[in-house]
Amino acid sequence: MATETIPTLCWRNNTDGSPPALVLLDQTLLPVAERLLDCEDVETVAEAIESLRVRGAPAIGVAAAYGVALGAWHGRVFGNIARCVTVAIERLARTRPTAVNLFWALDHMRGIMDSLEGSADDEVYRALVAAAHKIHLDDQELCRRMGEHGACLVPDKATILTHCNAGALATAGWGTALGVIYAAAEQGKDIHVYADETRPLMQGARLTSWELQRRGIHVTVICDVAAATVLRDHKVDCVITGADRIAANGDVANKIGTYGVAILAQAHNVPFYVAAPTSTVDLDLASGDLIPIEERAAGEITEGFGRRTVPEGVGVFNPAFDVTPNHLVSAIITEHGIARLPYCDVLQAWGKATPSAVETASS
Amino acid sequence: MATETIPTLCWRNNTDGSPPALVLLDQTLLPVAERLLDCEDVETVAEAIESLRVRGAPAIGVAAAYGVALGAWHGRVFGNIARCVTVAIERLARTRPTAVNLFWALDHMRGIMDSLEGSADDEVYRALVAAAHKIHLDDQELCRRMGEHGACLVPDKATILTHCNAGALATAGWGTALGVIYAAAEQGKDIHVYADETRPLMQGARLTSWELQRRGIHVTVICDVAAATVLRDHKVDCVITGADRIAANGDVANKIGTYGVAILAQAHNVPFYVAAPTSTVDLDLASGDLIPIEERAAGEITEGFGRRTVPEGVGVFNPAFDVTPNHLVSAIITEHGIARLPYCDVLQAWGKATPSAVETASS
Repeated sequence: MATETIPTLCWRNNTDGSPPALVLLDQTLLPVAERLLDCEDVETVAEAIESLRVRGAPAIGVAAAYGVALGAWHGRVFGNIARCVTVAIERLARTRPTAVNLFWALDHMRGIMDSLEGSADDEVYRALVAAAHKIHLDDQELCRRMGEHGACLVPDKATILTHCNAGALATAGWGTALGVIYAAAEQGKDIHVYADETRPLMQGARLTSWELQRRGIHVTVICDVAAATVLRDHKVDCVITGADRIAANGDVANKIGTYGVAILAQAHNVPFYVAAPTSTVDLDLASGDLIPIEERAAGEITEGFGRRTVPEGVGVFNPAFDVTPNHLVSAIITEHGIARLPYCDVLQAWGKATPSAVETASS
Repeated sequence: MATETIPTLCWRNNTDGSPPALVLLDQTLLPVAERLLDCEDVETVAEAIESLRVRGAPAIGVAAAYGVALGAWHGRVFGNIARCVTVAIERLARTRPTAVNLFWALDHMRGIMDSLEGSADDEVYRALVAAAHKIHLDDQELCRRMGEHGACLVPDKATILTHCNAGALATAGWGTALGVIYAAAEQGKDIHVYADETRPLMQGARLTSWELQRRGIHVTVICDVAAATVLRDHKVDCVITGADRIAANGDVANKIGTYGVAILAQAHNVPFYVAAPTSTVDLDLASGDLIPIEERAAGEITEGFGRRTVPEGVGVFNPAFDVTPNHLVSAIITEHGIARLPYCDVLQAWGKATPSAVETASS
């Protein structure tokens, strides 16, 4: 397998006293242009999350953690680090409502700061940068473990359908659903992926196919409407998607269209797998009905790609996510292993573990 | 209900000796521009069908019939009418493979010509124009009857999901699936339509919403991926679509995505109705497996909006239609009435009737 690095996001320290930066690959420009965006303040990070320049639940969590670190840098310069970190957390929490990793990362950063009350600003700043780095590295490690667990579910010469992008671009550089595919490919398995283009923002067409192509994995893009035909006629072995939030009972919020694909998979007796780190599990929500679903601007539908496709004055409905009930989910692949119905107990056990605790437990 | 005329297509005779024309509303430009296209020769009609300037199974049939009449006009001028009509039929038959109305209309026109062997060119030409007019008017009449039958299935305050465009723009000016909705609205029923945008060519977003808006019917456009959510959360009373070809057993070929919507409808206990004239029924095909499915160019997916959405070098799969098996079809609405499973006998009886025979039988 080709192993071209995918520069989803990284942290850059400057030695000349100028601000550090969270450097993001601007995903809104892919696949036409590969442009890096330097985020040197909280607002630029927040805008990048809102505009989907960085997206995917795990990557949003990592970016938000670095955003808090940027807030701390500016706070240290101006002598009000606690206030700046609090404002940063509040601003970043308002960016997108569905992905729980965002809130998990912000809570984690707030906890670090609270634990250092009374410490020198320098110490607080360094601790917050270190915490963000740890979330970043943990994500890569978790995705690798998730991939190894999930690869057992993927036969050689598998045909896999995926929806949206749950790959290196959605995480700290490896991927959840696509991480499983990369791990299977590393084991020497020959994989063919059908990528739903994923309207309205085309993450499957623009991002999933781009990174699979870079990694040398055979990919075919289809319109979302062709998924049923592919499931019926093209010997799909399994569907694998990521998740933006998983309720305690295993209901899965993910990109709009996932619920439909899960129904189609069941109708064709094709297993439907979800790959996500346990930081995506929200034990506070008993079921998926309680997951807040973001509605996004009409323009994504009416003129999303530079050409008007809906008459002026016609209404649109543009939910960004949907909820797949647990009974349609054949398995949830996490860094701890593979969970199957009923999900409550195992997610309860796994979801309580922070990445740090997980590392301790498994090391 | 507003009754603004929708000028899908019409025939224009010129009195100055210049060629007559089939005048089409160029549907590729909607909803941004409303431009009429004069087709004065067979090739222009064929290109218009291939490019989807005119589309929808019934409208393609009518346009092709007028295309044959244009061939006859030129043949009469050059003294080789039989040859020109044959060439016209052959050319038009190569435009699109799935909609059976095209072949039905061409066969009908060929039959008219064959029946007039030895007649004067003028007589042949006039008979072919009259036959095309009759197909045109019959379509309007059939759609009206279909609408009256189908409206019985639509409750007041109904919420209806539709896919692609099976409206005035897909027929001679009234519609099949949307004809049912128009008929229900004429009965005073308050209707709300969810229109799947229908990738890749956006007939739902561009055309269905455009004509529903013109007729004063409340419409909301959704991405195809949101259909499952709408079916679950928005109290959809029924799904109604058109058809491009219906096999003898009631399997339905229609726009790609229809099969998936039918599965989603069944999963939510929502009736799935198909509205189509019996000229759409192909009694020669025992089942939908035998219906030829057109694959269209990759560019419709990779750069359909004027901006590249798939990386260079990535493959795509772009079937234009899919087949919904009869067991997912709650009813087929035709000009004769409403058929339900098992479809074989009733479609056999109805499908054998030509529009002329139907008119006689019911008058």
